[in-house]
Amino acid sequence: MSRVYNFSAGPAVLPEEVLKQAAAEMLDYNGCGMSINEMSHRSKTFDQVIQTAEQDIRDLMNIPDNYKVLFLQGGGHTQFAMVPLNLFRNSKKCDLVNTGQWSKKAMAEAKRYGTVNLVASSEDKTFTYIPKLDPAKFDPEADYFYITLNNTIYGTRWTKLPETGNVPLVADASSNILSEEIDVSKFGLIFAGAQKNVGPAGVTIVIIREDLIGHALDFTPTMLDYETHAKENSLYNTPPTYAIYVAGLTFKWLKKLGGVKAMEKINREKAAILYDFLDNSKLFKGTVVPEDRSLMNVPFVTDSEELNAKFVKEATEAGLVNLKGHRTVGGMRASIYNAMPYEGVEKLVNFMAEFEKANS
Amino acid sequence: MSRVYNFSAGPAVLPEEVLKQAAAEMLDYNGCGMSINEMSHRSKTFDQVIQTAEQDIRDLMNIPDNYKVLFLQGGGHTQFAMVPLNLFRNSKKCDLVNTGQWSKKAMAEAKRYGTVNLVASSEDKTFTYIPKLDPAKFDPEADYFYITLNNTIYGTRWTKLPETGNVPLVADASSNILSEEIDVSKFGLIFAGAQKNVGPAGVTIVIIREDLIGHALDFTPTMLDYETHAKENSLYNTPPTYAIYVAGLTFKWLKKLGGVKAMEKINREKAAILYDFLDNSKLFKGTVVPEDRSLMNVPFVTDSEELNAKFVKEATEAGLVNLKGHRTVGGMRASIYNAMPYEGVEKLVNFMAEFEKANS
Repeated sequence: MSRVYNFSAGPAVLPEEVLKQAAAEMLDYNGCGMSINEMSHRSKTFDQVIQTAEQDIRDLMNIPDNYKVLFLQGGGHTQFAMVPLNLFRNSKKCDLVNTGQWSKKAMAEAKRYGTVNLVASSEDKTFTYIPKLDPAKFDPEADYFYITLNNTIYGTRWTKLPETGNVPLVADASSNILSEEIDVSKFGLIFAGAQKNVGPAGVTIVIIREDLIGHALDFTPTMLDYETHAKENSLYNTPPTYAIYVAGLTFKWLKKLGGVKAMEKINREKAAILYDFLDNSKLFKGTVVPEDRSLMNVPFVTDSEELNAKFVKEATEAGLVNLKGHRTVGGMRASIYNAMPYEGVEKLVNFMAEFEKANS
Repeated sequence: MSRVYNFSAGPAVLPEEVLKQAAAEMLDYNGCGMSINEMSHRSKTFDQVIQTAEQDIRDLMNIPDNYKVLFLQGGGHTQFAMVPLNLFRNSKKCDLVNTGQWSKKAMAEAKRYGTVNLVASSEDKTFTYIPKLDPAKFDPEADYFYITLNNTIYGTRWTKLPETGNVPLVADASSNILSEEIDVSKFGLIFAGAQKNVGPAGVTIVIIREDLIGHALDFTPTMLDYETHAKENSLYNTPPTYAIYVAGLTFKWLKKLGGVKAMEKINREKAAILYDFLDNSKLFKGTVVPEDRSLMNVPFVTDSEELNAKFVKEATEAGLVNLKGHRTVGGMRASIYNAMPYEGVEKLVNFMAEFEKANS
């Protein structure tokens, strides 16, 4: 078996150590004589798995006590509905900054249940930057202020959060959760599909300030009410037990590595060698303005569609896979999540240098 | 490692062969150099996984062409909302038979969006039977007629379906899907959480007749509209890829074993030795009327709480685990899903015989 360097945008590379442990425990978790997949979510054994996972992510992200951590299903798309259904509790208005496809989807769903005030957008330049905000455009009556913290498709990220005062800031952190330090106390709600930096697709992490729970619109389906899950510590119904278990293994791996601070340092180093190369290359160039560049998703192009295709093909042959850019952006994209080792990015940069030499 | 015989009601035992293959492929699926957990749901490789899984369950259940098969998230509880949100398309009334806790939950959620006509209930005798129905109580204007096909907690199952004419029959088949032959064409919609007879918790199978798609109430969240998923063949957003993969392995296992007909024969044999023992025991007795007994979940009791506890404890020590009954019923329950081998039930019966001898 030969593992490749997998630059997939998601579902994405997981730590090899985590996969090895999951494989080793598949038929017998911890001497129970059965797989995690086979045990009741109400068993003592699973209870310890989910409680440990929750405590570990609380430790890793320094989550204050007045926030609940929920392990839900349905991905970011379900959050696009749950956020307005639960947070439109007064004015039924929200502020939103449009930084790409996921913000747009969140906006479309929120509009079905209330009014969206579009504070700013970077659509004019294919979302290659994070817009500067004019606080005069903020609605002080908004029920929440919505941003996409890291934009997987376009490779941008917020480095300075909007100052929203008493309006709770809500962030989709699907593609950068646990990759860099975040001050959770600045947010009302953070959500993240697990399938980029955490674990298998099928579990969504929601971190929500307690005062935002319990105000769902009256037609909200029970399963889409945060209160349902908060009251039962994510055990109202059968949760995605195996995905939570693997997420827990990832949290342990991250703790052992030194936590989010240590991870961020590595991620900055990984991103730096790739961006430095792009900035100095005559063949390749990054597509995002330098100050808003993502640490996780790095889109880049050459001037020629033909060369782009050749690059992706030859990289794949060299064991550097899933480098094709998103269909709406074209070119290439390297997603270099937590589990992508420094060595993988180094190999990519070396390969790009060789490719440049051979094709110029 | 020593595997136990696991009688858990769900999440429940999976075929050892399936778990072994999942473990073996955890770091490298089919020579891709990565785990199924690590690849895009839009990759060719995963596309083949989900398409094969769909075709296999179509073959196994003889699903007619005018039915869609969807792989969703959120479990039965999300279906309790999706069914009324999508099927209340005319009268906003439904018929329902209350055969236990899950029917009641489905009823409560449906009542939030329309009117539920309770056709019959077996609550008077702790749900130990399936009620005889009086067709005069059926509402010919109902948008659907709802039943729980197998009642996990109480151990009952429908053996004769209600004749609902033009009113689509909707069934929660979470605990008996693929365990016995079902004529899908008699239903408008069948749903099942995977965590009993199919695979890991976190994927829900929905089999829906096409004419029932596209009528969701206008405030239905996009992710809870069957049309969203039907249009995109379950790939509207990132589905629970790993759970679908394991479900697919289970389908292959079932096909190799001879399909649902062969499986039903084994399940009938497994259930028969256990019910025969109960019918002849002086210590143990089944709690369900013989004609409505489930093939999957077998609740039983002794006359003494103390003996019940002693039995569960000693059985656990003998490697026969998770036999404690549901908290609302007490006593014991043996869940003997597809993946429970005949040998496991035989061992249980032998152990019960020994226990009876030692304690009478």
